[in-house]
Formats: sequence, C-alpha cells, structure tokens
Amino acid sequence: MSPKLRVHGVAMSLDGFVAGPDQGLDNPLGVGGTRLHEWIFETRTGREMTGAEGGTTGIDDDYIAGGFLGFGATIMGRNMIGPVRGPWPDDDWRGWWGTNPPFHHPVFVLTHHPRPPMEMEGGTTFYFVDDGIESTLEQAFDAAGGADVRLGGGASTVRQYLQARLVDELHIAIVPILLGGGEGLFENLGSASADYECVEVLSSQVVTHVRMARTR
Amino acid sequence: MSPKLRVHGVAMSLDGFVAGPDQGLDNPLGVGGTRLHEWIFETRTGREMTGAEGGTTGIDDDYIAGGFLGFGATIMGRNMIGPVRGPWPDDDWRGWWGTNPPFHHPVFVLTHHPRPPMEMEGGTTFYFVDDGIESTLEQAFDAAGGADVRLGGGASTVRQYLQARLVDELHIAIVPILLGGGEGLFENLGSASADYECVEVLSSQVVTHVRMARTR
Repeated sequence: MSPKLRVHGVAMSLDGFVAGPDQGLDNPLGVGGTRLHEWIFETRTGREMTGAEGGTTGIDDDYIAGGFLGFGATIMGRNMIGPVRGPWPDDDWRGWWGTNPPFHHPVFVLTHHPRPPMEMEGGTTFYFVDDGIESTLEQAFDAAGGADVRLGGGASTVRQYLQARLVDELHIAIVPILLGGGEGLFENLGSASADYECVEVLSSQVVTHVRMARTR
Repeated sequence: MSPKLRVHGVAMSLDGFVAGPDQGLDNPLGVGGTRLHEWIFETRTGREMTGAEGGTTGIDDDYIAGGFLGFGATIMGRNMIGPVRGPWPDDDWRGWWGTNPPFHHPVFVLTHHPRPPMEMEGGTTFYFVDDGIESTLEQAFDAAGGADVRLGGGASTVRQYLQARLVDELHIAIVPILLGGGEGLFENLGSASADYECVEVLSSQVVTHVRMARTR
C-alpha cells in the first residue's frame, strides 16, 4: 500500500466550522472556538500533551492517540505554528509546543516567508517551505520514509489539498455545538467532494468521529 | 411543559447541506441530494411510508418513527409540498404523499400564494398561509391542541425560524457524505447559534443523530 496523505484530528462544529467567527490574536480560534477542543483535554492522551495526568480512555482517546501513530511527517499551514504573521521578525518563535513538540518527525510548514530549519528536541524539525503544496507533499513523503504524512491543518491548508485532490483520508471529529460563523472546513470543495466515501462513523458521548477515504 | 416547536427529520451532509447543488425540477434535491435520504428507505417506518414491507429497526427507524409521534401540527415551506412555484395554476397539485398523507393533523404551508384549505384523508388538512412565520406558528400551536408543532422544512424555512429564535428543539441526521455545494442548513445563523446545546448524540452504522435543545 502506498503511503497516504491523511487529515487526522480536525474538530468541526455541527455547522461546519473549525474556528469560530472573529479570529484574531486574542482569539486564535475565534469566538467560541476553544469549545471545539475541550473534549481533547478530557482524554488521557490530550492531558498528557499538556503535562497533566488522568483523563478518559476509549473512542476519543484512541482518536487523539492515533494522530501520533503511523505518521512519518506532518504538513501544516503557517498559522498553525504560531500567531506571527508576515515576515518572521526573528527566530524567537519556536511553536506552541515547547522544546519537545509531540511530532517527533519532520514538520513542513507552508509559508511565503521561508526561514532556516528549526531543530527541536525529540526528533521534530520544522522546515519552512515556499514551494507550493505539491512539491511540499513530495518532500514530506520523502522525509516520511514510507510512512503516511499527516495534514495537520488549518482549514485553508486542508481545503487547498482537498481541492487539488491530494488527500487520501480525512478523519474528522464532529463536535455537536453551533458556532454560527467562522472558518468552514468544506467550503468551496466542489467536485472534489465526489471522491470520498465514509468508511467509519463512531460516536462517543461527546464527539462523532467520521472517517472518509478517497475512492478514486 | 409548554408545547414546543421542533425540527425533526432533517438529513444533512457532512459538509452541511440538506440538498445538493443545482436544484431544479429534474433534481428537486439537487445533484447527489437523494443520497441524503437513502437510509430512510432502509428503515421499517421509511419503507411503510412507500407501501413497502420489511426494513430495519433500531436507532434509524426509531428516529423516523419519532417524526410522527407527539406532534399535533406541522409547518412547512411551500417548496416542500411540491414542485409548483409562483401562483397555483389550479388545485390539481395535492402534495407528494397521495390521498392519505402521513401527517394526520393540520399542516400549515408557508406561501405567498394562498389557496383554500385542502382536506385529505386520514386527518391531514393543508392550510396555505401568508401571515408571516410568527402568526403561522401561533395558528399551528392552536391547532395542535397542546401537542408539539413539527417544523418540517425545507432549509430556508428552518433557517427563518432559527434566526427568529423560535425553534425549541432541533433533531438532525448527519449523513456522512460530501455534496460539495447546495443548500446549507446552518447558513447565516449568527448569534442564534448560541441558544442551543446538544442533548443527545446517537450513531447508527450509517447516520448520526444529533438533538439540540434551546437553553435560553
């Protein structure tokens, strides 16, 4: 089986948003957007990521843990790594995740403002690339050495890869809240939508996990 | 407990559409839109509605059957009753449902083109009203005699009542398909979205049932 490009771990509201309205520095996930992620920090894996103990096991925890299994590289949009916009003022910003980020593999950050690679503890190196999404994907597959590549978000990055018909699998978590506006995951998907079929639906008490796979 | 206005039985795609793109006479549910309803005709109640036998029982069937329980009146948009647009050419069109429609109670059809009430077999009478959504709701509650009123769709009718903050409960079925465009259920909901909380999530093998209730 060839390695896949997979979206895993995108939390979407019932009305289709992965961030609420009025995103900004004070509200990186928009108004109400943090409610999309509360369930993550109820799980054991989610709590471990923040250094906390305890947490639930089961469907939701398996899902979060699965985001770190079987991937050899990650691609993300530039806004996922931090709040800095435009040219990097210096090399001070090193991501949200501390000195030892949870990736432990190469992470390709799509940006119009390249900067030198940033090697972190634990095997994570951030590469800042300005080569277009296809070339970045090739680099990520090379770096993954036969494992899958995770498409980490945000929504606009996911949409670009979907529209280019490059996403093999899409595993999203539907959070049953209404945000009323914000950044839509599936906006302007058009005919690319016909490529996908649902291969799994699993609901916990709080979240519904849907896995879509490309069938052509 | 006061009677409620409840949405029940709206099937929505994963990307938020209750009808696919390019709706028209040949395609009343838009391209791909009939896929939203295939699961209904797998259930026992769904099959009964079409005169067929057999079908599944369980979560999906309970849900479809629930659409006919506890309601004393229904409100629907004019496009739900048939494909005729504009002024009624005559009284020939009597709905999609044959001589004995499955409502068995008064049905209020929102229209800019009133026509005399249409009494059917089995207790269903269609009333064609042009009084605005609030007045229609009052009439429906009166007619329901203490039972709940069902808001039967389509999407634009549901949105109007949601925006006017008149919907008490919303039970939708998420069908895990992507339509890529069409009529969105939750478009332009705005701040009304903050009124709702999820009170139940149930997934069958094929559909996820989400029940939202107004909390303020």
